[in-house]
Amino acid sequence: MTYQPLNTETVTKYVKDRNGVRDIFPPDARLIAKEVGDGNLNLVFIVESKDDPNRSVVVKQALPYLRVAGDSWPLTRERVRFEAQSLMQYNKLTPGLAPEVYDYDEEMSAVTMEHLRHHQIMRKPLVARQKFPNFIDHISTFLARTLFFTSDLYLTGPEKKALQAKYINPALCKIQEDFVYTNPYKTSPENNWNPKFDAEVQATRANAALKIAIAEVKETYISHAQSLLHGDLHTGSIMVNEQETKVIDSEFAFYGPMGYDIGNILAHLTLNYLTHFAHTPIESVRVDFQSYLLDTIRGVWLEFAKKFEQLWIENNKGELGAADYWDFQGGEKAFQDFRQSYILNVLRDTAGHGGCEMLRRLMGIVTIWDISSIEDLDKRANVERLALKIGSRWIMERYQINSIDDLIGIVKEETQNVKV
Amino acid sequence: MTYQPLNTETVTKYVKDRNGVRDIFPPDARLIAKEVGDGNLNLVFIVESKDDPNRSVVVKQALPYLRVAGDSWPLTRERVRFEAQSLMQYNKLTPGLAPEVYDYDEEMSAVTMEHLRHHQIMRKPLVARQKFPNFIDHISTFLARTLFFTSDLYLTGPEKKALQAKYINPALCKIQEDFVYTNPYKTSPENNWNPKFDAEVQATRANAALKIAIAEVKETYISHAQSLLHGDLHTGSIMVNEQETKVIDSEFAFYGPMGYDIGNILAHLTLNYLTHFAHTPIESVRVDFQSYLLDTIRGVWLEFAKKFEQLWIENNKGELGAADYWDFQGGEKAFQDFRQSYILNVLRDTAGHGGCEMLRRLMGIVTIWDISSIEDLDKRANVERLALKIGSRWIMERYQINSIDDLIGIVKEETQNVKV
Repeated sequence: MTYQPLNTETVTKYVKDRNGVRDIFPPDARLIAKEVGDGNLNLVFIVESKDDPNRSVVVKQALPYLRVAGDSWPLTRERVRFEAQSLMQYNKLTPGLAPEVYDYDEEMSAVTMEHLRHHQIMRKPLVARQKFPNFIDHISTFLARTLFFTSDLYLTGPEKKALQAKYINPALCKIQEDFVYTNPYKTSPENNWNPKFDAEVQATRANAALKIAIAEVKETYISHAQSLLHGDLHTGSIMVNEQETKVIDSEFAFYGPMGYDIGNILAHLTLNYLTHFAHTPIESVRVDFQSYLLDTIRGVWLEFAKKFEQLWIENNKGELGAADYWDFQGGEKAFQDFRQSYILNVLRDTAGHGGCEMLRRLMGIVTIWDISSIEDLDKRANVERLALKIGSRWIMERYQINSIDDLIGIVKEETQNVKV
Repeated sequence: MTYQPLNTETVTKYVKDRNGVRDIFPPDARLIAKEVGDGNLNLVFIVESKDDPNRSVVVKQALPYLRVAGDSWPLTRERVRFEAQSLMQYNKLTPGLAPEVYDYDEEMSAVTMEHLRHHQIMRKPLVARQKFPNFIDHISTFLARTLFFTSDLYLTGPEKKALQAKYINPALCKIQEDFVYTNPYKTSPENNWNPKFDAEVQATRANAALKIAIAEVKETYISHAQSLLHGDLHTGSIMVNEQETKVIDSEFAFYGPMGYDIGNILAHLTLNYLTHFAHTPIESVRVDFQSYLLDTIRGVWLEFAKKFEQLWIENNKGELGAADYWDFQGGEKAFQDFRQSYILNVLRDTAGHGGCEMLRRLMGIVTIWDISSIEDLDKRANVERLALKIGSRWIMERYQINSIDDLIGIVKEETQNVKV
């Protein structure tokens, strides 16, 4: 089928013809579709059976141009390939933690997948102080398994390179190269910031030591091909409910530093923590939820580190430390030291990338609901000042970080005297 | 033309039919070929005109198997693509410093290139104490230009990734992953070493701190995709004469850390330096040549660093430090600091990779003529002990290295009391 954008009419016929979708709907099912895409890069349809609303799928199709701009800004449709490939990888590595992919259609740049009927994007409920008791366990499993099994610790050189070759993702990496690590810290027309935070934005753009450090962190984003990353793993790319956690929207997938994915999660939890100084004026309520968030940050890292190391011990088949390399008097301890040094470096990278992610949400192209929903611009600026201090310290002090408590310690130090 | 191995009969007809070679030989030229390959991966022919011996070319064709083993060890013929591509890249970036490529024939896995009639492989003349007055200038230019223009400092993210995708080179990288960073330091059937050096080999295999450090250095070989490397840049891959320097045999080309190429050169110059304690018993003669070698090591690094930084200043178009990113009060100094920190990190990587290269030549699959030509095994072991100490210190102390004189200082310290 030659590429053509689907619509609510054509998509119902389309899914019935696709192999992988036949198990979902009986042949005589009467289907109805609605378009629910709020992005502007893709069409997103929910297709469901009129007879049985429990039977439904999501069809996501890439547009070859940026939707808001008509066809004036051509984009590569290849991004759906990265999303479909990586979701299928997750289906194998972490079943249940990402939507199931039923079908991927390269020609149509369309992927048909599980409809997450009972889940919501995590960001807004966190603003509303909703807790998710299984999140630590789920996301740490997701991180440990996706990052370990695609790394040099599990794969041989040739196996890793074969996988890496499928994830050379120039267009979407360029978006992060520009909008995470470069443009927010210089004059650039798409930057947006709170006018009450202007002095800090100007000062950041002229902060020599910080800008050198951001450039160093960017270097690792571009050139440290450590694991297959999700590439955009913030709380807007995670769907949750009380029981389940599902990672979505992985079109930014590429080989990069593990600390980028982990740093994104920790940065957005920290930003959410800070915004409760504005969102949640009642102290006891705020303290309770902020404690939950710090426990979540600590738990995500500690559980990740534990699971990741355990996977390494049990599946030590890759290029870094084959069993017989460590087969000598004291070798077991040496291998342990190497594992711990490797994981500590991931934490330090997490601090660097997480810090950049915090900063760019304060002064780049796009902020987050947690911040933008603070209507009082003075209160918002107070939160932003805290985020700037903490993000900058994560970046500048990354080589001195020795444990997750050092990272959390920076958050606590900078917020201990906050008056609301 | 379907792939078939060439022979001295067929190759003369073959070159006449190739587009890129028609300028070399007149249509009626009578050609004669001889096979000169001493390797076992490739056929290498010199094809020359009977009428004009100044007209000649080299044809290098990959065999689909390891030659000594018949067809028992299949190898990918793709390696000729990596060699041809990278040589053509060098022809553009550093004309005159690599053989000119006249033709690349993907189907036949054959590349036809300039015949270097008046050059010799650098390794043996260095053992014979021959000096090459232009070597520092040439090789530092080669390194600076090939490493800079393929890096994120010159290329945008998409440009770099497009180039990187052409150099995913799993088979040949695997050879280095195994034979530089892993197998020499454990029991492995192909390892070879001087029996008088056995105690040191066993001790190295059980040296916990060193093996952790080697694994860390290996991690950067595998996953730090910084620049397009030659990938095997020792003194056996460089042809020289008094005037000229030509880099050959680039089939290992891949995206890796700059310090790997530079470290290879410095390691082989250092190994050569050490072998003169055996090769050159007359002190004044030895001291003179060893001083020349240390000056060469220093000169290669300093000239590389100077030229590389100058290229960066003049061609700052890549992802790391676009001009307007540094456009603030004090930004010029900040950009300078960033450049110097980046280049210092390359030197530290050079120490790590160079140290591993020294060690693997003492106890891995293949040593070098500089060492193997020392017939007295006790004298050879004395040299090997020095190389082991220096290589280990380059690796272990790499993060403390602040200048090329620190690296050279380790060589001097370890050799100051050598009795011949």
